[in-house]
Amino acid sequence: MTFAPCVVGVDFGTLSGRALVVRVSDGAELGVAEHPYRHAVLDQQLPDGTRLPPDWALQVPSDYLDVLRHAVPEALDRAGVRPEQVIGIGTDFTACTVLPTLADGTPLCDLPEFVARPHAYVKLWRHHAAQDQADRINALAAERQEAWLGRYGGRISSEWEFAKALQLLEEDPEIYRRTERWVEAADWIVWQLCGTYVRNACTAGYKGQYQDGAYPSRDYLAALNPDFAGFVTDKLDQPIGELGAQAGKLTAEAAAWTGLREGITVCVGNVDAHVTAPAAAAVEPGEMVAIMGTSTCHVMSSDRRGAVSGMCGVVDGGILPGLWGYEAGQSGVGDIFAWFIRTGLPAEYAQRAEALGQSPHEYLTDLAARQKVGEHGLVALDWHSGNRSVLVDHDLSGVLVGQTLSTRPEDIYRALLEATAFGTRTIIDAFEAASVPVRELIIAGGLTKNALLMQIYADVTRRPLGVIASAQGPALGAAMHAAVAAGAYPDIRAAAHAMGKVHRAVHLPDPERAAAYDRLYAEYQLLHDYFGRGTNDVMHRLRRIRAEATA
Amino acid sequence: MTFAPCVVGVDFGTLSGRALVVRVSDGAELGVAEHPYRHAVLDQQLPDGTRLPPDWALQVPSDYLDVLRHAVPEALDRAGVRPEQVIGIGTDFTACTVLPTLADGTPLCDLPEFVARPHAYVKLWRHHAAQDQADRINALAAERQEAWLGRYGGRISSEWEFAKALQLLEEDPEIYRRTERWVEAADWIVWQLCGTYVRNACTAGYKGQYQDGAYPSRDYLAALNPDFAGFVTDKLDQPIGELGAQAGKLTAEAAAWTGLREGITVCVGNVDAHVTAPAAAAVEPGEMVAIMGTSTCHVMSSDRRGAVSGMCGVVDGGILPGLWGYEAGQSGVGDIFAWFIRTGLPAEYAQRAEALGQSPHEYLTDLAARQKVGEHGLVALDWHSGNRSVLVDHDLSGVLVGQTLSTRPEDIYRALLEATAFGTRTIIDAFEAASVPVRELIIAGGLTKNALLMQIYADVTRRPLGVIASAQGPALGAAMHAAVAAGAYPDIRAAAHAMGKVHRAVHLPDPERAAAYDRLYAEYQLLHDYFGRGTNDVMHRLRRIRAEATA
Repeated sequence: MTFAPCVVGVDFGTLSGRALVVRVSDGAELGVAEHPYRHAVLDQQLPDGTRLPPDWALQVPSDYLDVLRHAVPEALDRAGVRPEQVIGIGTDFTACTVLPTLADGTPLCDLPEFVARPHAYVKLWRHHAAQDQADRINALAAERQEAWLGRYGGRISSEWEFAKALQLLEEDPEIYRRTERWVEAADWIVWQLCGTYVRNACTAGYKGQYQDGAYPSRDYLAALNPDFAGFVTDKLDQPIGELGAQAGKLTAEAAAWTGLREGITVCVGNVDAHVTAPAAAAVEPGEMVAIMGTSTCHVMSSDRRGAVSGMCGVVDGGILPGLWGYEAGQSGVGDIFAWFIRTGLPAEYAQRAEALGQSPHEYLTDLAARQKVGEHGLVALDWHSGNRSVLVDHDLSGVLVGQTLSTRPEDIYRALLEATAFGTRTIIDAFEAASVPVRELIIAGGLTKNALLMQIYADVTRRPLGVIASAQGPALGAAMHAAVAAGAYPDIRAAAHAMGKVHRAVHLPDPERAAAYDRLYAEYQLLHDYFGRGTNDVMHRLRRIRAEATA
Repeated sequence: MTFAPCVVGVDFGTLSGRALVVRVSDGAELGVAEHPYRHAVLDQQLPDGTRLPPDWALQVPSDYLDVLRHAVPEALDRAGVRPEQVIGIGTDFTACTVLPTLADGTPLCDLPEFVARPHAYVKLWRHHAAQDQADRINALAAERQEAWLGRYGGRISSEWEFAKALQLLEEDPEIYRRTERWVEAADWIVWQLCGTYVRNACTAGYKGQYQDGAYPSRDYLAALNPDFAGFVTDKLDQPIGELGAQAGKLTAEAAAWTGLREGITVCVGNVDAHVTAPAAAAVEPGEMVAIMGTSTCHVMSSDRRGAVSGMCGVVDGGILPGLWGYEAGQSGVGDIFAWFIRTGLPAEYAQRAEALGQSPHEYLTDLAARQKVGEHGLVALDWHSGNRSVLVDHDLSGVLVGQTLSTRPEDIYRALLEATAFGTRTIIDAFEAASVPVRELIIAGGLTKNALLMQIYADVTRRPLGVIASAQGPALGAAMHAAVAAGAYPDIRAAAHAMGKVHRAVHLPDPERAAAYDRLYAEYQLLHDYFGRGTNDVMHRLRRIRAEATA
């Protein structure tokens, strides 16, 4: 029981939301509660049974409100904190997760006439059906030498606001016409909390190509599609709120949902990966935070602005005020390990793991840990879910080289762990090549509990590895931003020093293993460039053949 | 019950021997019995516990005699055939499977002083630890432009007599010195049956580089290693017996083992794949027989002598008198499918197969058969056990390209089936490129029972597919040669017409699927040449890294 001032952070993930009650003075985590989204991810059909095409991924906005109704009161209750102690609430969200609304924020999928229309729903970050639009956006921007393109490593993603909006326009013009606002869910949830629509600087920059005070021009948009010319002015543009600023005050309605007091500070929206950097106390230039879960997001601030190839984005103050914020990513990491366990673990292994009281991941990790570097004779490419950085190509796929009749499941598992580490090293190499130094790696997210994986990352990247000291990094980061917005700290850097949590240098690179990994990494690079940079476009052709076969 | 004349064929495989009693007049199979080798394959340790290095594969010669003692009498008993009816016995063996003996045929591993010496044992065909020696044999032969090299597609294999003997010399000179004869197991077993050592023309040509009446020269051998100069004259050379000729008469001792009559005809030794061609009635030029089991062996006779790249060998009369006999092979086929089932089949699949009363192979095949060509989005290289033809490189390894998070076990399984079909097409293409036509494919061996696999081979090769009509192809072929040796037929071609068994054109290529496979085969070829012809030598480097890590 504490009587000290507290803040609440709410992290909206892919399958659930988590609320965390945090003490302002030292970041102590007093209570947490999770609430799963009732509709999870819609990737097969809408709630009414309407079928969805491949590569779609939608959500239902009312599921987010349920998190406010259930997880927040439950976290408060568990924390033993009274509403009067809570001075602010902050949120973070997956991104780019985006929805069409009316001018008052009503989601179009809540209108009875649109319940059977897929384009009326929230498009989740991993909705990958706008690749055609993204390809055209990139080709035209390259042709016209649009200045913003360089800030995104030369390619924007099909996951982002413009590609998804253009898909909406071209596939369901009626819904596009009825769309009065094209809103990041990160901002929509803040709108529901305080009644004000403030667009946060982070998603505007990273997912909306907002650079140096402007979006892509009307001319450019018209050249993409004449009906798209007015997209920014009619549906997207909105006052920008700085990260850690106050968006508004908690409404009476939202106070009733959450059990918090009406009128407390609601912080500007933010993105899960980005709030994790200060949560891990990573506020200095060159401290890269890798949030490793189903996928990995790399965020880093730097005083240098470099043209780093294949970035998700470089945004002025995109993570911390006064520094250039860099975001990069790997689209499949834990997802790949889970896929392997799901589709490649023999019964005998599953039984032995169970007999030992271990999860299959723990069991395979223990077996893999007994090997020396290179003992399995394998090298893999970690592109089972495409490649975000540095190739920005979601149509790439996985590769495994070196199987023999004595290759075992733990060999392949270890090769997959290593492949993701090589993917992170590729990203670090791109930073260094652009003269943006990466001094240190700090790991957050669910995969930190795998010590072998962590050691592999230290050895492969030849960097000391820190580990976030919170199991709730994003929610903690969101709460810290709320503390700043409520005036408890002058800025997020100060909040990070007081409330952020990290164990530094937990895993140090071993020179011998690092040297052995250099040789395997050289093989990874050769295959990376051969399959990823057009020498052999077999992956794209296989995808086309597959699409034709299943058409 | 028959009173007609019969012959016995004994097939010595990798893990067991099978005896078959056959009626001479029409090839009717009257009784069969199998006897597994007690020591199977020694690839981890010797019977006394002495550890073996990687890539070794040994056998124990007394296991072969046990087959004569158990399988032959049992087959006779099951056939209801009296010993007086049996006019001859023929054998076939895996090759090159070779052992060091004294001048009287005593295996060196039977000498008490050598039981703990790996080099004293039989080196099984798939003993792959003589690659260094094979590399030097090839390099020197190429440098000196040895005439015989072209008959073997430009490279001899580490599996063969000279590479294995040179390894013996260089790793255990004492055993080499004590070796008075370096004997193919195919001839050793005949020696045990009739007391006479006759070297069969087939292994002499295919595994011993015996061409145009001569072995590699003393000069050449001395240049390889001065101590190897006398290898042919001292340990290898021996009168050659033509295929289907009589090697001698059954000894009293062998008659006691087998239950056959002393003095009946014992046929010259032969090789499992080669005897299968006449067993499948394939005695015309261009009729290629593929014996598909753990590995695949392709044998074909032709009136054309072409320089077909990557052959295991071209031998005058090597399969049928008067024709050029070609042998090619894929070192891993059924072995690869079995490896996948053993190491990559999830518990859930194993349970569903069991519930349906199916083997895992049958279950995965049923699932895979529902797909259209290319639907899985994958392409694989079938080199998990190296590549015999056309690259002749046992240090290559497997590749899988195109995995996504929705790739399922049946997808990978089908891609592996297809990869082996692409491997066979690569071999056929090499024949056609050398103007040696391949008109028809006839499949023998255990994999003929997989109808999906057979259809894939027809579609991929665009050739009508016949299937041998015997479950005991090699043993039947051995028995047919015995019938010739005993004088029942003038030659093996006549025996094949009377006793051989084939269903022709069982699977016909489908034009649409064949066209779809052309596209996937083009991808296979690109990867084949990239990984197999030196553009990216990653597989060799991975193997070296692995060897160093485990050293």
